[in-house]
Amino acid sequence: MHSLVLQSDFGLDDGAVAAMYGVAIDTKPDLRIFDLTHNIPPYDIWEGSYRLAQAIDYWPEGSVFVSVVDPGVGSDRLSVVARTKTGHYVVTPDNGTLTHVDAIFGVEQLREIDEHSNRRKGSEASYTFHGRDIYAYTGARLAAGIINYEQVGRELNVADMVRLPWDKPYRDGDTVYGNIDALDVRYGSLWTSIPRTLFNEINPEFGERFQLRVMHQGRVVHSNQMIYAPSFAAVEVGESLIYVNSLDRMAAAINRGSYARAFNIDTGSAWHVSLTHVK
Amino acid sequence: MHSLVLQSDFGLDDGAVAAMYGVAIDTKPDLRIFDLTHNIPPYDIWEGSYRLAQAIDYWPEGSVFVSVVDPGVGSDRLSVVARTKTGHYVVTPDNGTLTHVDAIFGVEQLREIDEHSNRRKGSEASYTFHGRDIYAYTGARLAAGIINYEQVGRELNVADMVRLPWDKPYRDGDTVYGNIDALDVRYGSLWTSIPRTLFNEINPEFGERFQLRVMHQGRVVHSNQMIYAPSFAAVEVGESLIYVNSLDRMAAAINRGSYARAFNIDTGSAWHVSLTHVK
Amino acid sequence: MHSLVLQSDFGLDDGAVAAMYGVAIDTKPDLRIFDLTHNIPPYDIWEGSYRLAQAIDYWPEGSVFVSVVDPGVGSDRLSVVARTKTGHYVVTPDNGTLTHVDAIFGVEQLREIDEHSNRRKGSEASYTFHGRDIYAYTGARLAAGIINYEQVGRELNVADMVRLPWDKPYRDGDTVYGNIDALDVRYGSLWTSIPRTLFNEINPEFGERFQLRVMHQGRVVHSNQMIYAPSFAAVEVGESLIYVNSLDRMAAAINRGSYARAFNIDTGSAWHVSLTHVK
Repeated sequence: MHSLVLQSDFGLDDGAVAAMYGVAIDTKPDLRIFDLTHNIPPYDIWEGSYRLAQAIDYWPEGSVFVSVVDPGVGSDRLSVVARTKTGHYVVTPDNGTLTHVDAIFGVEQLREIDEHSNRRKGSEASYTFHGRDIYAYTGARLAAGIINYEQVGRELNVADMVRLPWDKPYRDGDTVYGNIDALDVRYGSLWTSIPRTLFNEINPEFGERFQLRVMHQGRVVHSNQMIYAPSFAAVEVGESLIYVNSLDRMAAAINRGSYARAFNIDTGSAWHVSLTHVK
Repeated sequence: MHSLVLQSDFGLDDGAVAAMYGVAIDTKPDLRIFDLTHNIPPYDIWEGSYRLAQAIDYWPEGSVFVSVVDPGVGSDRLSVVARTKTGHYVVTPDNGTLTHVDAIFGVEQLREIDEHSNRRKGSEASYTFHGRDIYAYTGARLAAGIINYEQVGRELNVADMVRLPWDKPYRDGDTVYGNIDALDVRYGSLWTSIPRTLFNEINPEFGERFQLRVMHQGRVVHSNQMIYAPSFAAVEVGESLIYVNSLDRMAAAINRGSYARAFNIDTGSAWHVSLTHVK
Repeated sequence: MHSLVLQSDFGLDDGAVAAMYGVAIDTKPDLRIFDLTHNIPPYDIWEGSYRLAQAIDYWPEGSVFVSVVDPGVGSDRLSVVARTKTGHYVVTPDNGTLTHVDAIFGVEQLREIDEHSNRRKGSEASYTFHGRDIYAYTGARLAAGIINYEQVGRELNVADMVRLPWDKPYRDGDTVYGNIDALDVRYGSLWTSIPRTLFNEINPEFGERFQLRVMHQGRVVHSNQMIYAPSFAAVEVGESLIYVNSLDRMAAAINRGSYARAFNIDTGSAWHVSLTHVK
């Protein structure tokens, strides 16, 4: 039996998440259930997509993730279960939630949930809470081994999966380019999509200086020089730095300050960054 | 062994909930413990009552709920365990927390907690945290089968149970009447106490129009016509709709807007709603 | 196998806590993991120290706590595991987080984490998330019995452990003295470090009056007379009281009001209180 890990934009103020837990436990009383986060901002598919990628690879193979950020509930968007190349499963509406997981780890197979066989009994008249009636129910049964992956439903073409715009990070000479993937909300850092391995192609050494540029819809909105440091402790309080974040990607921060708040920076495909080695 | 599900108005910022968990685990190391929510607004018994009803029926029979919204801790309010007609248990102060569960599912039997036998050893000098010393302790022992329901304490008359004012929804001609039970905080919807089955008596069809009226203490404070739709996806962004919520009751919403914030509407027994079929 | 209990200042909005869970589960699939709180204000070691002390003693002996409030990650601060006189373990940076646990329960032994043997494989290039790569990993292996306490690393001198300034509460005549340890955020109470047993030395009876004085950096900033009561229910709404809090220490509150908000009071070693028996 595998773990079930739930993510949503429901918050934890009402009984919605507890209803999903109840449905999962009712399916298999000794199922192990955990939370990724339920504080995804309402309808924010980009954030849901990124948080999945932030956590998924630390869990054992076979773990089943359910992610419900679903502005299109009741529309004709599909309900799917993806199997990643890392051996994890993601149960989700096919609305872009798989963007980062696919870009970073790869989606190997995609199946549409057959809502005839994989829907909680008695929920047929409900159109508004697929998270409980279909996703938690199907995720629990898959994690518990009551159904196998093939029994989820028919296979879809992975190439047809809905993806948000997301540019592959790349290098051009002494500069690497990427997106702003996330803001580390508690510490005010700016997390880019640029992997450490790509950054290493411009031969950085700790203590050297780099030019950070932030572009929004093509215009440079922020530019700053800062040093590359192993951690916040290597710079003064209030000093900026470039560092490798916990996902092995490049990040920028002001030690004990908030990069995002200081410079009005946001996340998503419209926000690009570059890092240039200053010689 | 059954699951233990905790609800409170303690929030998750300090160690109070973790102390309850510790007491429960100390009682039975392999007990399965879950949260309903700990973000009930402080002292808001109505909200605690509603959230219980929102989640309880999705859990297996025998599950034990502990709900601690307890402005009267240390007063002569009783500590009770209710058994519902659905086979669930609720450990709570007898202060109105059982209102919605009783109205919707029915309370079958009520027992007063014998604080002599059902209190954590060493906690006798503590008067301020019954949630930890009596409720979590008793709930854990009941869920684990260390005591059975009869060992909770003497039986009380269910009719004497404290109930908040709550009007039974009803129909009069082409109009159905009820309370505002809750606001769906993340999505701004207004959730009524009117069951879909009652609403069906006025013969609604998807796409037809209904007049919503909100009355506060007898005065109409809001009135609006809107269509009945299966889900948000059936109307435009910014358009209002009537729909069946995840508890099989009628709700009103503005697609991607906030009904409650737009019109200054609140919940409780002083807030009534009606829905009239517009012909 | 023992329980693992996690605390941090990471919040629950992103995937950081879920990554720690994943690492722990990957170490031992059936490990039992719980949260103390993840809402410690960023970098607030005092608050982290207090919340540990608030919850630890309610858990069974052998339970392993991981606390990550770590402004110095990447600096030369040590990573340690403390064993308390109550038989609990705390995995934490040695930065003052053990202050209250040591003062209240006592630290019996201290070991430095050998980061060569006790670090998640593949995390060697990461300098910024010791909570996941070292603390959750080591805590999980200790709780699961994969390593024993001696295998954590070399023993340190408990006397050398980093402690925040914290004055031992004391009595002088009819007055008892202590710190403001915490504010009960949801209910606005002020929690002192003065134990009930010390307060009892000035022979209080319920209903008698006491003078509360709050001193900040040596100056009296607030003074008020109030009665000693068993619980909030013994005074009127809006009335102040002295009572025994859930940690068996003295607290002051305004029934249904906020003491801290009303008088601009904060916590920590610079905030002292005294209680004088009024005759």
